[in-house]
Amino acid sequence: MTEFIPPGSRFLDLPSPLPVKRGGLLHGARIAYETWGELDAAGDNAILILTGLSPDAHAAAHDDDPAPGWWQAMLGPGKPIDTDRWYVVCVNSLGSCKGSTGPASPHPDDGQPWRLRFPDLSLEDVADTAALVVRALGIERLACVIGNSMGGMSALSLLLRHPGLARSHVNISGAARALPFSIAIRSLQREAIRLDPNWNDGDYDDATYPESGMRMARKLGVITYRSALEWDGRFGRVRLDSDRRDDEDPFGLEFEVESYLEAHARRFVRRFDPNSYLYLSRSMDWFDIGEPVGGDTDAGLARIEVEKALAIGVETDILFPLQQQRQIAEGLRAGGADARFLPLPSPQGHDAFLVDIERFGPAVAGFLAGI
Amino acid sequence: MTEFIPPGSRFLDLPSPLPVKRGGLLHGARIAYETWGELDAAGDNAILILTGLSPDAHAAAHDDDPAPGWWQAMLGPGKPIDTDRWYVVCVNSLGSCKGSTGPASPHPDDGQPWRLRFPDLSLEDVADTAALVVRALGIERLACVIGNSMGGMSALSLLLRHPGLARSHVNISGAARALPFSIAIRSLQREAIRLDPNWNDGDYDDATYPESGMRMARKLGVITYRSALEWDGRFGRVRLDSDRRDDEDPFGLEFEVESYLEAHARRFVRRFDPNSYLYLSRSMDWFDIGEPVGGDTDAGLARIEVEKALAIGVETDILFPLQQQRQIAEGLRAGGADARFLPLPSPQGHDAFLVDIERFGPAVAGFLAGI
Repeated sequence: MTEFIPPGSRFLDLPSPLPVKRGGLLHGARIAYETWGELDAAGDNAILILTGLSPDAHAAAHDDDPAPGWWQAMLGPGKPIDTDRWYVVCVNSLGSCKGSTGPASPHPDDGQPWRLRFPDLSLEDVADTAALVVRALGIERLACVIGNSMGGMSALSLLLRHPGLARSHVNISGAARALPFSIAIRSLQREAIRLDPNWNDGDYDDATYPESGMRMARKLGVITYRSALEWDGRFGRVRLDSDRRDDEDPFGLEFEVESYLEAHARRFVRRFDPNSYLYLSRSMDWFDIGEPVGGDTDAGLARIEVEKALAIGVETDILFPLQQQRQIAEGLRAGGADARFLPLPSPQGHDAFLVDIERFGPAVAGFLAGI
Repeated sequence: MTEFIPPGSRFLDLPSPLPVKRGGLLHGARIAYETWGELDAAGDNAILILTGLSPDAHAAAHDDDPAPGWWQAMLGPGKPIDTDRWYVVCVNSLGSCKGSTGPASPHPDDGQPWRLRFPDLSLEDVADTAALVVRALGIERLACVIGNSMGGMSALSLLLRHPGLARSHVNISGAARALPFSIAIRSLQREAIRLDPNWNDGDYDDATYPESGMRMARKLGVITYRSALEWDGRFGRVRLDSDRRDDEDPFGLEFEVESYLEAHARRFVRRFDPNSYLYLSRSMDWFDIGEPVGGDTDAGLARIEVEKALAIGVETDILFPLQQQRQIAEGLRAGGADARFLPLPSPQGHDAFLVDIERFGPAVAGFLAGI
């Protein structure tokens, strides 16, 4: 039962007790975040980054933690998100296991992990606690909030619930609501974890750990994060060399693509808390920006007040398909924003923003140059 | 450990022992099949249907089994595959559990199921044993071989390995080789079954049965058999009524799409043998019509001798995507066939041929009218 807290993390203690949207209270909770660059005198050069399900707040290297971050190529001096110009804040989501309080964090009453005592988590809570970090840093108005994937949902929620907190918005491979295909995928990932006897209703430890459930969940994730097109070129039908195969294992791994999934899963399963995964996964299923207006997603988007926005999507994304980013741009435009939709032909699917810097870099840099 | 044999099945006893392609022998094996219509005096009105992974040979009702079959709307008097004109044979694949010999069938030595004693199964074996049924029925030359999904792979193999056995071919949502995305999906399905402790290296029975592994595998299958587009319209974000939810189950089912998957899985898990599923699933991963020519798939297709062909694909199919049917048509054309590629805009994904009869019916009927 481990949290994985980057060494350069800073923390904001949240008000305690903190009521969460769907009911229940958090005690002694905190949000982990990291920053790059300097807030200027006018306080108007701040950018907030909200992340996908699994990343921590360490988006890039800085003085307190020189290790490369998960968006290293995008963020830094002279990079597309240029920290010579911008003061950048990245927040680890509430409910995660990477510094912010989540199911793996110690409960103040007994020092034991919250586990399933953690209240139902929603992305509105992720947004609200990120807004508290922004305010605590003395930022009255963000120049931009950037959200990737799940962070694109959280960012829309932040914009809706905190009018005026941001002048502009970049939504990357995000969505205004969860659709049934992605709900089905996430439901199956959660089922894989819950079916693992070691999950034990959330009461596992490092010795009896739901490793096979997490492995299944992660593999299914990776399958939906990338694209068939990319894999055709990358793996084709290449087999594993015989010394990398276990001929004693009936139905064991045989193709390179299977080995790739296995390697990805192995890196992940012990580096993310299973309960945290369940909570964050479900918070995405629940998300619909139209919830306050009777489930009318477009109307929810049109309620958002923001000056300028860019919704970037990827043609090969099967998890957050292109029409979802088009919907965001059109909805924000209906609300008065100067909002643009940018579809990109990246072959890497949903994860393209992490790797196709050649396309994402200029797109984000160009937008930021104009705000 | 049950086989599920339709009551109208007929059987062909295979030569015994029967060597299979990847090594090993089958003893006392048989193929189940069903027929409709009459073979004409010239013997040139026969059509063979090869199926996807799970169907039996009962494609439609007939005198010996009036129950509707899995392709009931397509096959019968006056239907697109008109049994007043055609003599139709549908074969249950070798390795299945629906009448043809497979891992759930009794081994002649001890009457116990073959289980993992069953030799490695390939689609070439499925094709060769289907060809034996055709010959045994006195058919010298098929008017057409129709293959759906996995059956589209088996049909290509039959055409390549038995030159002259068929004059024409309809390939429906098939493929000339397995690609890494579908290999990854199937690998994960097999992993779900193998991870279930009740699978027990294939040594389960009805009392200790790998039910949860089969449920996961089937749900993942259904997710990839349909399409996100169809589900958006069909389920949206509709929740289950409270009386259909188990509020005591943390992370239990909440959305209609989850309940739909659960219902599909429940219907399947005890109606298909898990070992049979593993064998057939892997036979698809192994398949490449280009294998005899050094893995050059196009060259393999061009070796096939057939007069006329139609490759039908569906725009929303993520498992056997459209470019795979285009490849089949182009490859057969390179081999001298009058081959056409027909992409259909059905919203139902890979499974469209089972439900979108409005589009598939005229396409197949039109082709058969011209042969």
